[in-house]
Amino acid sequence: MRLDRPKLINVGLRSFYDSVHAQGANVAHVDWRPPAGGDPELARLLAKLDRPEIDEANKKAITKILAARPMLVGIADAKDVILGMTERTILHSGPPIEWERMSGPTKGAVWGALIYEGLAKDQTAADKLVTSGKIKFGACHDHDSVGPMAGIISPSMPVFIVENQENGNRSYSNFNEGLGKVLRYGAYEDSVIKRLKWIEKKLAPMLVDALKRSGPIDLKNIMAQALQMGDELHCRNVASSLILMKMIAPHMAETGFDKRDVDDCLKFMGDNFLFFLNPAMAACKATLDAAHGIKHSTVVTTLARNGTDFGIRLSGLGKRWFTAPAEIPKTLFFPGFTVEDANPDIGDSAIMETAGFGGFASAAAPAVVQVVGGSPSVAADYTREMGEICLAKDGSLSIPFMNFEGIPRGIDLRKVMDTGILPFINTGVAHKRPGFGTVGFGVLRAPMLCFKKALKAFAEEY
Amino acid sequence: MRLDRPKLINVGLRSFYDSVHAQGANVAHVDWRPPAGGDPELARLLAKLDRPEIDEANKKAITKILAARPMLVGIADAKDVILGMTERTILHSGPPIEWERMSGPTKGAVWGALIYEGLAKDQTAADKLVTSGKIKFGACHDHDSVGPMAGIISPSMPVFIVENQENGNRSYSNFNEGLGKVLRYGAYEDSVIKRLKWIEKKLAPMLVDALKRSGPIDLKNIMAQALQMGDELHCRNVASSLILMKMIAPHMAETGFDKRDVDDCLKFMGDNFLFFLNPAMAACKATLDAAHGIKHSTVVTTLARNGTDFGIRLSGLGKRWFTAPAEIPKTLFFPGFTVEDANPDIGDSAIMETAGFGGFASAAAPAVVQVVGGSPSVAADYTREMGEICLAKDGSLSIPFMNFEGIPRGIDLRKVMDTGILPFINTGVAHKRPGFGTVGFGVLRAPMLCFKKALKAFAEEY
Repeated sequence: MRLDRPKLINVGLRSFYDSVHAQGANVAHVDWRPPAGGDPELARLLAKLDRPEIDEANKKAITKILAARPMLVGIADAKDVILGMTERTILHSGPPIEWERMSGPTKGAVWGALIYEGLAKDQTAADKLVTSGKIKFGACHDHDSVGPMAGIISPSMPVFIVENQENGNRSYSNFNEGLGKVLRYGAYEDSVIKRLKWIEKKLAPMLVDALKRSGPIDLKNIMAQALQMGDELHCRNVASSLILMKMIAPHMAETGFDKRDVDDCLKFMGDNFLFFLNPAMAACKATLDAAHGIKHSTVVTTLARNGTDFGIRLSGLGKRWFTAPAEIPKTLFFPGFTVEDANPDIGDSAIMETAGFGGFASAAAPAVVQVVGGSPSVAADYTREMGEICLAKDGSLSIPFMNFEGIPRGIDLRKVMDTGILPFINTGVAHKRPGFGTVGFGVLRAPMLCFKKALKAFAEEY
Repeated sequence: MRLDRPKLINVGLRSFYDSVHAQGANVAHVDWRPPAGGDPELARLLAKLDRPEIDEANKKAITKILAARPMLVGIADAKDVILGMTERTILHSGPPIEWERMSGPTKGAVWGALIYEGLAKDQTAADKLVTSGKIKFGACHDHDSVGPMAGIISPSMPVFIVENQENGNRSYSNFNEGLGKVLRYGAYEDSVIKRLKWIEKKLAPMLVDALKRSGPIDLKNIMAQALQMGDELHCRNVASSLILMKMIAPHMAETGFDKRDVDDCLKFMGDNFLFFLNPAMAACKATLDAAHGIKHSTVVTTLARNGTDFGIRLSGLGKRWFTAPAEIPKTLFFPGFTVEDANPDIGDSAIMETAGFGGFASAAAPAVVQVVGGSPSVAADYTREMGEICLAKDGSLSIPFMNFEGIPRGIDLRKVMDTGILPFINTGVAHKRPGFGTVGFGVLRAPMLCFKKALKAFAEEY
């Protein structure tokens, strides 16, 4: 209980408060930052966006987000379902990027995918093939798809098919391989290729069969349960992976597959606490795509990174990307690795934050924030803070320790620019050199520059 | 922020504070109750228990509790492993009780068990058999066993075998049947008997085989994970059941059983969010039994109810039970039921609270307290309060939202009597008439009378 009235009120820069407070003075702090980061030109543009047609458009967008009903309806080879996927197409995470500018882990994963596809026999041959210009690259997001980390999807890879049954649109994501030396972190050695082949030849066909028996699986329902069970669904998918497994395991046992294969598949799914991440990402993509392309809407429908650039997209600005250099996350490194090893921020998995999970749902999984030195109350602060840049709280996705308040959803560019609060992201961290793999887990903010560029473009467009 | 100093301090009865506070006065409340409930004779006895040999004995007991390593090592028929189990023995929950005084659900479950065993063809025959005196009853706890609700264990029932590998002792528990019309809630119709037979003939043999393949399963480890995932492990075993399933499912697939049976078993386990409760209860029994029988120890090693009486046991007082009438829990009823339908408190499952889970770990699973109108902060208050009557916090069983503080373990009779704080229990609630089943979930406190009796007996003994 404070017994005295504050004698000073500090508005804005926290450091003033801290220094006065340290001297024992009675001082209260009010968090405030000038709109548009204090840039007068941007502040002028921002002030113009206080318009009813934008409010109206954003209302449409958030309604789409809240109403989305993403269902796992099947699994198929990428080449059979992803539009524009040819035998020589490789999709990658984040905004579009040419080969020369790709980060180490992305290059490693591309080499691995070419070996996996049988298009090259080793890294040297793969590199030659790419530099000869015979491979067509594309961003997953531009092909209704998402992939974590390097996010490589090649033609033969099996992908989850998620249908937003409220809106009719579909999204796709590849399979999660686990941690360590895995393709999505840039590793491409034999064991990586072998695992991908096993996923294609054993796991995927069994799940195709099991899914036919189980019928479509309601992914939002699983995510809602998992939020009650310590998952934030980006870096922690422990509960969600188990719930998916429990729903599908009986049907896997029913298939005609050899019992050793059923055993292997159940072990693989049970041991990979990120197994659910990929269908969850496709669910969030299918959710946000329904809110994309609404004229006048300032809702952010994509946050994605390719290991070199961070890119965002706005509902009202179609297929345009607004990019800035990707930064290195604040990371808890696995033993043997340091910040010198870390690649800049990478992956489409920030679609989880874009949809209100991950860093936005930190309070649901304080264990994740703890990884980088935070406490449960810090975790709750992040969720509260993200609420300030979002249009709504989704009561159907509630967090027990926020008194069952819903996760914040629908990032509004205007709110980001007005408050200066940047989206907070939980993420895996890749080694910067190809061939290494996972080096840790980290957290970071989306770069302000992306939002500044988007604001300028929006003001020009409307 | 309170800006004025309190003008009144209220010590003790909360109602004084409430009435003064309601009138707008500045008043602070200090929670305090007279030791031993204000009984001068008991207070005198209690004062005498402030002795170093008791402290020493309790230190031994809590060390045993914290060090316990309960492992699921196998499954067998009750008659083959439980000492004193004959072909005509029926074990029940709580303190020993004769047939005439048994509650409705216990009687219903006894009838069901006799039908299941083939000793009677229907309820009438079963009742005749019991009243003829040809059935020998015993308390599960007196046979190294525990069973939820009616807690009936009959000779042919398969039981989980849990070994405390730190101490060498073993405990047993029957299988969880799910909710609704089930034996443990006093139902005995055909579907109940059929399910028990299926457990005996299909599920148990498959799990026997699977457990041989998996090797012993570390139950404390599963409980530690589940506390991070919203389980308090008494009324909510959602995460723990999934973790056990994920560990054993691949081995179930490996067995030579028909794929339809594997499918059935996986569905049964996956759909029953209390499946893990029974092995967890055996784990807690094996943990507390290791701390039982230590001379001079005032540690409570059993809280158990038979639907008529609530009974407790003390480490230092051997096999003696201290009983009081069982009360009716504060219940959230399933549709169609009211307090008129509720049986008094029943089951050995309060072994979970005795070991620091359930109501003691409320903060891990606010969803459970919410069931009876509480909020997450109320849940945390219960856990903090239970800490006041316990000897230690177990850092290996931590609760994220208590800043990763461990669950309170080792209830000390002296602390209960000194503070007047009674153990807080989460529980299932049975219909008071045989044949009905589950009517809701509730919470309640252990009765003070048990502790008063134990204190008197302890003072006489030592």
